[in-house]
Amino acid sequence: MKTNITVSYIDELIKERLPRERDKVLQAMEYMLFSGGKRFRPMLLLNTAKAVGKRISDGAKNLAVALEFIHTYSLIHDDLPCMDNDDMRRGKRSCHMQFGEASAVLAGDALLNLSFETVLKGPLSNKSYQTACVYMFKMSGIEGLVHGQSLDLFGETKNIDDATELAIAKTGTLIRAALVCGALVGGASEEEARIFDEIACKLGVCYQIVDDILDSKKCEKSFLDVYSESDLIDHVKELNEEIKAACDKLPYDLEFLKEFCDQNIARRR
Amino acid sequence: MKTNITVSYIDELIKERLPRERDKVLQAMEYMLFSGGKRFRPMLLLNTAKAVGKRISDGAKNLAVALEFIHTYSLIHDDLPCMDNDDMRRGKRSCHMQFGEASAVLAGDALLNLSFETVLKGPLSNKSYQTACVYMFKMSGIEGLVHGQSLDLFGETKNIDDATELAIAKTGTLIRAALVCGALVGGASEEEARIFDEIACKLGVCYQIVDDILDSKKCEKSFLDVYSESDLIDHVKELNEEIKAACDKLPYDLEFLKEFCDQNIARRR
Repeated sequence: MKTNITVSYIDELIKERLPRERDKVLQAMEYMLFSGGKRFRPMLLLNTAKAVGKRISDGAKNLAVALEFIHTYSLIHDDLPCMDNDDMRRGKRSCHMQFGEASAVLAGDALLNLSFETVLKGPLSNKSYQTACVYMFKMSGIEGLVHGQSLDLFGETKNIDDATELAIAKTGTLIRAALVCGALVGGASEEEARIFDEIACKLGVCYQIVDDILDSKKCEKSFLDVYSESDLIDHVKELNEEIKAACDKLPYDLEFLKEFCDQNIARRR
Repeated sequence: MKTNITVSYIDELIKERLPRERDKVLQAMEYMLFSGGKRFRPMLLLNTAKAVGKRISDGAKNLAVALEFIHTYSLIHDDLPCMDNDDMRRGKRSCHMQFGEASAVLAGDALLNLSFETVLKGPLSNKSYQTACVYMFKMSGIEGLVHGQSLDLFGETKNIDDATELAIAKTGTLIRAALVCGALVGGASEEEARIFDEIACKLGVCYQIVDDILDSKKCEKSFLDVYSESDLIDHVKELNEEIKAACDKLPYDLEFLKEFCDQNIARRR
Protein backbone atom coordinates (compact mmCIF):
# COMPACT_ATOMS: atom_id res chain seq x y z
CA MET A 1 0.00 0.00 0.00
CA LYS A 2 1.50 3.31 -1.09
CA THR A 3 0.52 6.04 1.32
CA ASN A 4 0.91 9.78 1.65
CA ILE A 5 1.11 9.50 5.43
CA THR A 6 4.59 10.94 5.89
CA VAL A 7 6.43 12.57 8.76
CA SER A 8 5.66 16.01 7.36
CA TYR A 9 1.97 15.14 6.99
CA ILE A 10 1.91 14.23 10.71
CA ASP A 11 3.91 17.37 11.56
CA GLU A 12 1.19 19.48 9.94
CA LEU A 13 -1.57 17.68 11.87
CA ILE A 14 0.33 18.35 15.09
CA LYS A 15 0.92 22.04 14.32
CA GLU A 16 -2.79 22.57 13.60
CA ARG A 17 -3.58 21.25 17.09
CA LEU A 18 -1.07 23.24 19.15
CA PRO A 19 -2.20 26.23 21.22
CA ARG A 20 -1.37 29.69 19.94
CA GLU A 21 -0.02 31.59 22.93
CA ARG A 22 3.72 31.89 23.54
CA ASP A 23 4.91 30.56 26.86
CA LYS A 24 8.07 28.91 28.14
CA VAL A 25 6.15 25.67 28.69
CA LEU A 26 4.85 25.67 25.12
CA GLN A 27 8.42 26.18 23.86
CA ALA A 28 9.51 23.09 25.80
CA MET A 29 6.57 21.12 24.35
CA GLU A 30 7.44 22.17 20.80
CA TYR A 31 11.13 21.47 21.30
CA MET A 32 10.37 17.87 22.13
CA LEU A 33 7.51 17.46 19.63
CA PHE A 34 9.77 18.52 16.76
CA SER A 35 13.03 16.87 17.75
CA GLY A 36 13.18 14.29 15.01
CA GLY A 37 10.74 11.65 16.20
CA LYS A 38 9.88 8.97 13.64
CA ARG A 39 6.12 9.46 14.17
CA PHE A 40 5.63 5.73 13.72
CA ARG A 41 2.77 5.52 16.25
CA PRO A 42 0.51 8.07 14.51
CA MET A 43 1.52 6.57 11.16
CA LEU A 44 0.49 3.11 12.31
CA LEU A 45 -2.80 4.52 13.57
CA LEU A 46 -3.60 6.40 10.36
CA ASN A 47 -2.50 3.54 8.11
CA THR A 48 -4.65 1.11 10.09
CA ALA A 49 -7.65 3.45 9.94
CA LYS A 50 -7.14 3.83 6.19
CA ALA A 51 -6.65 0.10 5.56
CA VAL A 52 -9.81 -0.76 7.49
CA GLY A 53 -12.05 2.21 6.67
CA LYS A 54 -10.70 3.22 3.21
CA ARG A 55 -10.28 6.80 4.36
CA ILE A 56 -8.69 8.94 7.08
CA SER A 57 -11.45 10.51 9.15
CA ASP A 58 -11.07 13.59 11.35
CA GLY A 59 -11.48 11.28 14.34
CA ALA A 60 -8.49 9.23 13.21
CA LYS A 61 -6.42 12.40 12.78
CA ASN A 62 -7.26 13.61 16.28
CA LEU A 63 -6.43 10.23 17.78
CA ALA A 64 -3.15 10.07 15.85
CA VAL A 65 -2.03 13.47 17.10
CA ALA A 66 -3.19 12.68 20.65
CA LEU A 67 -1.10 9.51 20.55
CA GLU A 68 2.02 11.45 19.56
CA PHE A 69 1.33 13.96 22.37
CA ILE A 70 1.10 11.06 24.86
CA HIS A 71 4.30 9.49 23.52
CA THR A 72 6.11 12.84 23.74
CA TYR A 73 4.93 13.58 27.29
CA SER A 74 6.13 10.13 28.35
CA LEU A 75 9.60 10.74 26.88
CA ILE A 76 9.93 14.08 28.67
CA HIS A 77 8.94 12.64 32.05
CA ASP A 78 10.95 9.42 31.57
CA ASP A 79 14.11 11.43 30.90
CA LEU A 80 13.82 13.37 34.19
CA PRO A 81 16.67 12.96 36.72
CA CYS A 82 14.35 11.13 39.15
CA MET A 83 13.33 8.68 36.42
CA ASP A 84 15.82 7.42 33.79
CA ASN A 85 18.03 10.53 34.15
CA ASP A 86 18.82 10.91 30.46
CA ASP A 87 20.69 14.04 29.41
CA MET A 88 20.28 13.33 25.71
CA ARG A 89 17.33 12.28 23.54
CA ARG A 90 17.48 11.80 19.76
CA GLY A 91 20.99 13.27 19.70
CA LYS A 92 19.88 16.53 21.35
CA ARG A 93 19.71 17.75 24.95
CA SER A 94 16.71 16.24 26.68
CA CYS A 95 13.86 18.57 27.61
CA HIS A 96 14.90 19.20 31.22
CA MET A 97 18.52 19.83 30.16
CA GLN A 98 17.34 22.46 27.72
CA PHE A 99 14.53 24.13 29.72
CA GLY A 100 15.03 23.06 33.34
CA GLU A 101 13.25 20.38 35.31
CA ALA A 102 10.23 22.44 36.30
CA SER A 103 9.44 23.34 32.69
CA ALA A 104 9.94 19.71 31.66
CA VAL A 105 7.47 18.46 34.28
CA LEU A 106 4.96 21.10 33.16
CA ALA A 107 5.55 20.45 29.45
CA GLY A 108 4.81 16.75 30.02
CA ASP A 109 1.69 17.56 32.02
CA ALA A 110 0.53 20.03 29.37
CA LEU A 111 1.08 17.50 26.56
CA LEU A 112 -0.91 14.80 28.35
CA ASN A 113 -3.66 17.33 28.97
CA LEU A 114 -3.48 18.46 25.35
CA SER A 115 -3.94 14.86 24.21
CA PHE A 116 -7.34 14.91 25.98
CA GLU A 117 -8.22 18.32 24.57
CA THR A 118 -7.39 16.96 21.13
CA VAL A 119 -9.63 13.88 21.31
CA LEU A 120 -12.41 16.01 22.81
CA LYS A 121 -12.43 17.93 19.51
CA GLY A 122 -13.34 14.73 17.62
CA PRO A 123 -16.78 13.22 16.87
CA LEU A 124 -17.64 12.39 20.50
CA SER A 125 -21.16 11.22 19.70
CA ASN A 126 -19.82 8.46 17.44
CA LYS A 127 -19.75 5.13 19.31
CA SER A 128 -16.62 3.73 17.59
CA TYR A 129 -14.76 6.95 18.31
CA GLN A 130 -15.86 6.81 21.96
CA THR A 131 -14.60 3.22 22.25
CA ALA A 132 -11.31 4.23 20.65
CA CYS A 133 -10.86 7.16 23.09
CA VAL A 134 -11.53 4.90 26.08
CA TYR A 135 -9.00 2.40 24.75
CA MET A 136 -6.34 5.01 24.11
CA PHE A 137 -6.45 6.43 27.63
CA LYS A 138 -6.60 2.99 29.19
CA MET A 139 -3.37 2.25 27.33
CA SER A 140 -1.72 5.48 28.50
CA GLY A 141 -2.74 5.27 32.17
CA ILE A 142 -2.08 3.20 35.26
CA GLU A 143 -3.17 0.02 33.48
CA GLY A 144 -0.89 0.80 30.53
CA LEU A 145 2.07 3.08 30.00
CA VAL A 146 2.31 4.32 33.60
CA HIS A 147 2.34 0.70 34.77
CA GLY A 148 5.11 0.03 32.24
CA GLN A 149 7.24 2.84 33.61
CA SER A 150 6.55 1.61 37.14
CA LEU A 151 7.65 -1.94 36.19
CA ASP A 152 10.76 -0.49 34.56
CA LEU A 153 11.68 1.43 37.71
CA PHE A 154 10.62 -1.03 40.41
CA GLY A 155 10.17 -4.45 38.75
CA GLU A 156 12.60 -7.27 38.05
CA THR A 157 13.51 -8.95 34.76
CA LYS A 158 14.43 -12.51 35.71
CA ASN A 159 13.23 -14.38 32.65
CA ILE A 160 11.75 -13.97 29.17
CA ASP A 161 8.21 -13.66 30.60
CA ASP A 162 9.19 -10.72 32.80
CA ALA A 163 11.00 -9.06 29.90
CA THR A 164 8.02 -9.63 27.62
CA GLU A 165 5.55 -8.25 30.18
CA LEU A 166 7.72 -5.16 30.58
CA ALA A 167 8.06 -4.68 26.81
CA ILE A 168 4.30 -4.96 26.28
CA ALA A 169 3.61 -2.52 29.13
CA LYS A 170 6.34 -0.02 28.23
CA THR A 171 6.46 -0.18 24.44
CA GLY A 172 3.47 -2.27 23.46
CA THR A 173 0.79 -0.08 25.04
CA LEU A 174 1.00 2.86 22.64
CA ILE A 175 1.38 0.51 19.63
CA ARG A 176 -1.77 -1.25 20.87
CA ALA A 177 -3.46 2.15 21.06
CA ALA A 178 -2.30 2.89 17.49
CA LEU A 179 -3.58 -0.30 15.90
CA VAL A 180 -6.74 -0.81 17.94
CA CYS A 181 -7.87 2.84 17.81
CA GLY A 182 -7.10 2.99 14.09
CA ALA A 183 -9.05 -0.21 13.51
CA LEU A 184 -12.01 0.94 15.63
CA VAL A 185 -12.44 4.32 13.95
CA GLY A 186 -12.03 2.58 10.60
CA GLY A 187 -15.05 0.43 11.48
CA ALA A 188 -13.41 -2.89 12.45
CA SER A 189 -15.46 -5.45 14.37
CA GLU A 190 -14.68 -6.31 17.98
CA GLU A 191 -13.07 -9.59 16.92
CA GLU A 192 -10.91 -7.83 14.33
CA ALA A 193 -9.86 -5.25 16.91
CA ARG A 194 -8.81 -8.14 19.15
CA ILE A 195 -6.56 -9.52 16.39
CA PHE A 196 -5.04 -6.07 15.83
CA ASP A 197 -4.37 -5.96 19.55
CA GLU A 198 -2.51 -9.28 19.47
CA ILE A 199 -0.46 -8.07 16.52
CA ALA A 200 0.35 -4.85 18.39
CA CYS A 201 1.58 -6.69 21.49
CA LYS A 202 3.94 -8.74 19.35
CA LEU A 203 5.12 -5.65 17.45
CA GLY A 204 5.85 -4.00 20.81
CA VAL A 205 8.00 -6.94 21.90
CA CYS A 206 9.87 -7.04 18.56
CA TYR A 207 10.48 -3.29 18.68
CA GLN A 208 11.76 -3.41 22.25
CA ILE A 209 14.07 -6.35 21.54
CA VAL A 210 15.74 -4.47 18.67
CA ASP A 211 15.93 -1.34 20.85
CA ASP A 212 17.61 -3.33 23.61
CA ILE A 213 20.13 -4.79 21.14
CA LEU A 214 20.91 -1.34 19.67
CA ASP A 215 21.07 0.14 23.15
CA SER A 216 23.02 -2.65 24.82
CA LYS A 217 25.42 -0.30 26.62
CA LYS A 218 22.76 1.76 28.30
CA CYS A 219 19.66 -0.17 29.25
CA GLU A 220 19.22 -1.23 32.82
CA LYS A 221 16.45 -3.76 32.18
CA SER A 222 16.87 -5.53 28.87
CA PHE A 223 15.97 -8.64 26.91
CA LEU A 224 19.75 -9.20 26.84
CA ASP A 225 19.53 -9.99 30.58
CA VAL A 226 17.65 -13.19 29.77
CA TYR A 227 18.57 -14.23 26.19
CA SER A 228 21.61 -13.94 23.92
CA GLU A 229 21.50 -11.58 20.96
CA SER A 230 21.23 -14.40 18.41
CA ASP A 231 18.42 -16.06 20.38
CA LEU A 232 16.63 -12.72 20.51
CA ILE A 233 16.94 -12.24 16.76
CA ASP A 234 15.48 -15.71 16.24
CA HIS A 235 12.65 -14.75 18.61
CA VAL A 236 11.92 -11.58 16.63
CA LYS A 237 11.89 -13.57 13.37
CA GLU A 238 9.39 -16.03 14.85
CA LEU A 239 7.16 -13.24 16.14
CA ASN A 240 7.36 -11.47 12.76
CA GLU A 241 6.06 -14.64 11.09
CA GLU A 242 3.20 -14.81 13.61
CA ILE A 243 2.38 -11.14 12.97
CA LYS A 244 2.32 -11.65 9.21
CA ALA A 245 0.10 -14.73 9.58
CA ALA A 246 -2.31 -12.74 11.78
CA CYS A 247 -2.36 -9.92 9.18
CA ASP A 248 -3.36 -12.49 6.56
CA LYS A 249 -6.35 -13.54 8.68
CA LEU A 250 -7.75 -10.02 8.37
CA PRO A 251 -9.62 -8.89 5.22
CA TYR A 252 -7.50 -5.77 4.77
CA ASP A 253 -4.37 -4.74 2.91
CA LEU A 254 -1.89 -4.66 5.81
CA GLU A 255 1.30 -4.54 3.77
CA PHE A 256 2.45 -1.56 5.87
CA LEU A 257 2.48 -3.74 9.00
CA LYS A 258 4.57 -6.40 7.30
CA GLU A 259 6.95 -3.69 6.11
CA PHE A 260 7.12 -2.34 9.65
CA CYS A 261 8.24 -5.78 10.87
CA ASP A 262 10.98 -5.94 8.24
CA GLN A 263 12.13 -2.37 8.83
CA ASN A 264 12.28 -2.98 12.55
CA ILE A 265 14.62 -5.96 12.27
CA ALA A 266 16.68 -4.05 9.69
CA ARG A 267 17.36 -1.29 12.25
CA ARG A 268 20.04 -3.63 13.60
CA ARG A 269 23.00 -2.65 11.49
CA MET B 1 -29.78 24.99 50.65
CA LYS B 2 -29.19 21.96 52.88
CA THR B 3 -27.25 19.32 51.01
CA ASN B 4 -26.04 15.77 51.54
CA ILE B 5 -22.89 16.47 49.50
CA THR B 6 -20.34 15.82 52.23
CA VAL B 7 -16.66 14.88 52.23
CA SER B 8 -17.56 11.22 52.78
CA TYR B 9 -20.05 11.31 49.90
CA ILE B 10 -17.25 12.56 47.62
CA ASP B 11 -14.83 9.98 49.07
CA GLU B 12 -17.22 7.22 48.02
CA LEU B 13 -17.54 8.62 44.49
CA ILE B 14 -13.74 8.67 44.24
CA LYS B 15 -13.32 5.12 45.54
CA GLU B 16 -15.83 3.79 43.00
CA ARG B 17 -13.70 5.28 40.23
CA LEU B 18 -10.25 4.06 41.28
CA PRO B 19 -8.61 1.13 39.48
CA ARG B 20 -8.50 -2.22 41.25
CA GLU B 21 -4.96 -3.49 40.84
CA ARG B 22 -2.35 -2.95 43.54
CA ASP B 23 0.75 -1.09 42.47
CA LYS B 24 3.19 1.29 44.13
CA VAL B 25 1.94 4.12 41.93
CA LEU B 26 -1.67 3.49 42.91
CA GLN B 27 -0.64 3.58 46.58
CA ALA B 28 0.93 6.99 46.03
CA MET B 29 -2.24 8.18 44.26
CA GLU B 30 -4.45 6.97 47.12
CA TYR B 31 -2.14 8.43 49.75
CA MET B 32 -2.61 11.87 48.29
CA LEU B 33 -6.29 11.44 47.36
CA PHE B 34 -7.16 10.57 50.96
CA SER B 35 -4.89 12.93 52.86
CA GLY B 36 -7.57 15.19 54.29
CA GLY B 37 -8.46 17.40 51.35
CA LYS B 38 -11.52 19.57 51.85
CA ARG B 39 -13.08 18.41 48.55
CA PHE B 40 -14.42 21.90 48.01
CA ARG B 41 -13.97 21.80 44.23
CA PRO B 42 -16.14 18.68 43.64
CA MET B 43 -18.58 20.00 46.25
CA LEU B 44 -18.92 23.29 44.37
CA LEU B 45 -19.41 21.39 41.11
CA LEU B 46 -22.10 19.08 42.51
CA ASN B 47 -23.87 21.85 44.39
CA THR B 48 -23.93 24.00 41.27
CA ALA B 49 -25.24 21.10 39.17
CA LYS B 50 -27.94 20.46 41.77
CA ALA B 51 -28.90 24.12 42.14
CA VAL B 52 -29.25 24.53 38.38
CA GLY B 53 -30.56 21.12 37.36
CA LYS B 54 -32.44 20.05 40.54
CA ARG B 55 -30.55 16.74 40.59
CA ILE B 56 -27.06 15.26 40.55
CA SER B 57 -26.57 13.39 37.28
CA ASP B 58 -23.98 10.69 36.64
CA GLY B 59 -22.23 13.14 34.34
CA ALA B 60 -21.91 15.63 37.21
CA LYS B 61 -20.49 12.91 39.47
CA ASN B 62 -17.88 11.94 36.89
CA LEU B 63 -16.86 15.55 36.36
CA ALA B 64 -16.66 16.15 40.12
CA VAL B 65 -14.36 13.18 40.66
CA ALA B 66 -12.28 14.09 37.60
CA LEU B 67 -11.82 17.58 39.02
CA GLU B 68 -10.54 16.20 42.33
CA PHE B 69 -8.14 13.93 40.41
CA ILE B 70 -6.82 16.96 38.49
CA HIS B 71 -6.45 18.98 41.68
CA THR B 72 -4.62 16.10 43.40
CA TYR B 73 -2.24 15.53 40.47
CA SER B 74 -1.41 19.23 40.48
CA LEU B 75 -0.58 19.17 44.21
CA ILE B 76 1.73 16.16 43.79
CA HIS B 77 3.64 17.72 40.89
CA ASP B 78 3.70 21.20 42.48
CA ASP B 79 5.31 19.80 45.65
CA LEU B 80 8.20 18.19 43.71
CA PRO B 81 11.72 19.40 44.53
CA CYS B 82 12.08 21.00 41.08
CA MET B 83 8.81 22.91 41.55
CA ASP B 84 7.79 24.34 44.96
CA ASN B 85 9.90 21.80 46.87
CA ASP B 86 7.42 21.18 49.67
CA ASP B 87 8.21 18.39 52.13
CA MET B 88 4.83 18.64 53.84
CA ARG B 89 1.25 18.86 52.59
CA ARG B 90 -1.83 18.97 54.81
CA GLY B 91 0.32 18.21 57.86
CA LYS B 92 1.71 14.99 56.34
CA ARG B 93 4.78 14.14 54.30
CA SER B 94 4.24 15.17 50.68
CA CYS B 95 3.89 12.44 48.07
CA HIS B 96 7.53 12.41 46.91
CA MET B 97 8.78 12.42 50.52
CA GLN B 98 6.67 9.35 51.23
CA PHE B 99 7.07 7.39 47.97
CA GLY B 100 10.07 8.89 46.20
CA GLU B 101 10.18 11.36 43.34
CA ALA B 102 9.73 8.85 40.53
CA SER B 103 6.54 7.47 42.06
CA ALA B 104 5.27 10.98 42.68
CA VAL B 105 5.80 11.98 39.03
CA LEU B 106 4.03 8.79 37.90
CA ALA B 107 1.22 9.17 40.44
CA GLY B 108 0.54 12.67 39.15
CA ASP B 109 0.62 11.48 35.54
CA ALA B 110 -1.70 8.59 36.37
CA LEU B 111 -4.17 10.86 38.17
CA LEU B 112 -4.33 13.29 35.26
CA ASN B 113 -4.86 10.35 32.91
CA LEU B 114 -7.48 8.90 35.26
CA SER B 115 -9.37 12.19 35.26
CA PHE B 116 -9.83 11.73 31.56
CA GLU B 117 -10.73 8.04 31.82
CA THR B 118 -13.36 9.15 34.35
CA VAL B 119 -15.03 11.73 32.12
CA LEU B 120 -14.94 9.24 29.21
CA LYS B 121 -17.25 7.02 31.30
CA GLY B 122 -19.92 9.76 31.32
CA PRO B 123 -22.72 10.50 28.81
CA LEU B 124 -20.42 11.49 25.94
CA SER B 125 -23.21 11.86 23.41
CA ASN B 126 -24.84 14.57 25.51
CA LYS B 127 -23.95 18.03 24.14
CA SER B 128 -23.90 19.84 27.52
CA TYR B 129 -21.67 17.14 28.96
CA GLN B 130 -19.33 17.44 25.95
CA THR B 131 -19.11 21.20 26.43
CA ALA B 132 -18.39 20.71 30.13
CA CYS B 133 -15.59 18.20 29.39
CA VAL B 134 -13.97 20.56 26.90
CA TYR B 135 -14.15 23.37 29.45
CA MET B 136 -12.69 21.27 32.26
CA PHE B 137 -9.62 20.24 30.28
CA LYS B 138 -9.12 23.73 28.91
CA MET B 139 -9.00 24.90 32.53
CA SER B 140 -6.50 22.21 33.54
CA GLY B 141 -4.11 22.58 30.59
CA ILE B 142 -1.66 25.06 29.13
CA GLU B 143 -4.34 27.76 28.94
CA GLY B 144 -5.33 27.14 32.57
CA LEU B 145 -3.68 25.46 35.51
CA VAL B 146 -0.38 24.68 33.76
CA HIS B 147 -0.13 28.32 32.74
CA GLY B 148 -0.80 29.26 36.38
CA GLN B 149 2.04 27.08 37.61
CA SER B 150 4.28 28.51 34.90
CA LEU B 151 3.41 32.08 35.96
CA ASP B 152 4.08 31.13 39.58
CA LEU B 153 7.53 29.77 38.71
CA PHE B 154 8.65 32.22 36.06
CA GLY B 155 6.39 35.28 36.28
CA GLU B 156 6.58 38.45 38.34
CA THR B 157 4.08 39.96 40.78
CA LYS B 158 4.66 43.69 40.59
CA ASN B 159 1.14 44.97 41.19
CA ILE B 160 -2.42 43.93 42.02
CA ASP B 161 -3.15 43.08 38.37
CA ASP B 162 -0.23 40.62 38.22
CA ALA B 163 -1.27 39.06 41.52
CA THR B 164 -4.87 38.79 40.34
CA GLU B 165 -3.87 37.22 37.03
CA LEU B 166 -1.74 34.67 38.88
CA ALA B 167 -4.53 33.87 41.36
CA ILE B 168 -7.08 33.37 38.60
CA ALA B 169 -4.67 31.13 36.66
CA LYS B 170 -3.41 29.14 39.65
CA THR B 171 -6.44 28.93 41.90
CA GLY B 172 -9.30 30.26 39.84
CA THR B 173 -9.04 27.77 36.98
CA LEU B 174 -10.30 24.71 38.84
CA ILE B 175 -12.99 26.76 40.62
CA ARG B 176 -14.07 27.97 37.17
CA ALA B 177 -14.18 24.34 36.04
CA ALA B 178 -16.29 23.48 39.12
CA LEU B 179 -18.90 26.18 38.65
CA VAL B 180 -19.08 26.25 34.86
CA CYS B 181 -19.10 22.46 34.40
CA GLY B 182 -21.67 22.06 37.18
CA ALA B 183 -23.83 24.75 35.59
CA LEU B 184 -23.52 23.26 32.09
CA VAL B 185 -24.45 19.71 33.06
CA GLY B 186 -27.28 21.16 35.15
CA GLY B 187 -28.64 22.74 31.97
CA ALA B 188 -27.63 26.39 32.38
CA SER B 189 -27.69 28.68 29.36
CA GLU B 190 -24.50 30.05 27.83
CA GLU B 191 -25.12 33.46 29.39
CA GLU B 192 -25.70 31.91 32.81
CA ALA B 193 -22.51 29.86 32.46
CA ARG B 194 -20.68 33.11 31.72
CA ILE B 195 -21.96 34.63 34.98
CA PHE B 196 -20.90 31.50 36.91
CA ASP B 197 -17.49 31.91 35.32
CA GLU B 198 -17.18 35.51 36.53
CA ILE B 199 -18.22 34.43 40.01
CA ALA B 200 -15.63 31.64 39.93
CA CYS B 201 -12.79 34.00 38.95
CA LYS B 202 -13.64 36.25 41.89
CA LEU B 203 -13.94 33.28 44.26
CA GLY B 204 -10.48 32.16 43.10
CA VAL B 205 -8.99 35.57 43.90
CA CYS B 206 -10.69 35.69 47.32
CA TYR B 207 -9.53 32.18 48.16
CA GLN B 208 -5.93 32.92 47.13
CA ILE B 209 -5.83 36.17 49.10
CA VAL B 210 -6.88 34.38 52.30
CA ASP B 211 -4.39 31.58 51.55
CA ASP B 212 -1.62 34.15 51.11
CA ILE B 213 -2.51 35.81 54.41
CA LEU B 214 -2.61 32.47 56.26
CA ASP B 215 0.61 31.40 54.56
CA SER B 216 2.46 34.69 54.86
CA LYS B 217 5.75 33.10 56.01
CA LYS B 218 6.02 30.71 53.10
CA CYS B 219 4.74 32.08 49.83
CA GLU B 220 7.18 33.36 47.30
CA LYS B 221 4.64 35.21 45.21
CA SER B 222 1.81 36.66 47.25
CA PHE B 223 -0.87 39.33 47.31
CA LEU B 224 1.03 40.62 50.35
CA ASP B 225 3.79 41.74 47.96
CA VAL B 226 1.47 44.39 46.55
CA TYR B 227 -1.15 45.23 49.25
CA SER B 228 -1.26 45.33 53.05
CA GLU B 229 -3.25 42.70 54.91
CA SER B 230 -6.02 45.11 55.85
CA ASP B 231 -6.32 46.39 52.28
CA LEU B 232 -6.52 42.79 51.10
CA ILE B 233 -9.31 41.99 53.54
CA ASP B 234 -11.22 45.01 52.29
CA HIS B 235 -10.66 43.77 48.74
CA VAL B 236 -12.05 40.32 49.62
CA LYS B 237 -15.09 41.92 51.25
CA GLU B 238 -15.76 43.98 48.13
CA LEU B 239 -15.37 40.95 45.86
CA ASN B 240 -17.65 38.93 48.15
CA GLU B 241 -20.36 41.57 47.72
CA GLU B 242 -19.92 41.43 43.94
CA ILE B 243 -20.15 37.63 44.02
CA LYS B 244 -23.34 37.74 46.08
CA ALA B 245 -24.87 40.33 43.75
CA ALA B 246 -24.00 38.13 40.75
CA CYS B 247 -25.59 35.13 42.48
CA ASP B 248 -28.77 37.15 42.93
CA LYS B 249 -28.89 37.79 39.17
CA LEU B 250 -29.23 34.04 38.57
CA PRO B 251 -32.59 32.28 38.97
CA TYR B 252 -31.17 29.58 41.29
CA ASP B 253 -30.76 29.01 45.01
CA LEU B 254 -27.03 29.74 45.36
CA GLU B 255 -26.90 30.06 49.14
CA PHE B 256 -23.98 27.58 49.17
CA LEU B 257 -21.86 30.03 47.17
CA LYS B 258 -22.61 32.87 49.57
CA GLU B 259 -21.73 30.57 52.48
CA PHE B 260 -18.51 29.65 50.70
CA CYS B 261 -17.58 33.35 50.56
CA ASP B 262 -18.24 33.78 54.27
CA GLN B 263 -16.42 30.58 55.25
CA ASN B 264 -13.43 31.62 53.16
CA ILE B 265 -12.97 34.94 54.90
CA ALA B 266 -13.56 33.22 58.27
CA ARG B 267 -10.56 30.96 57.65
CA ARG B 268 -8.45 33.90 58.78
CA ARG B 269 -8.36 33.34 62.54
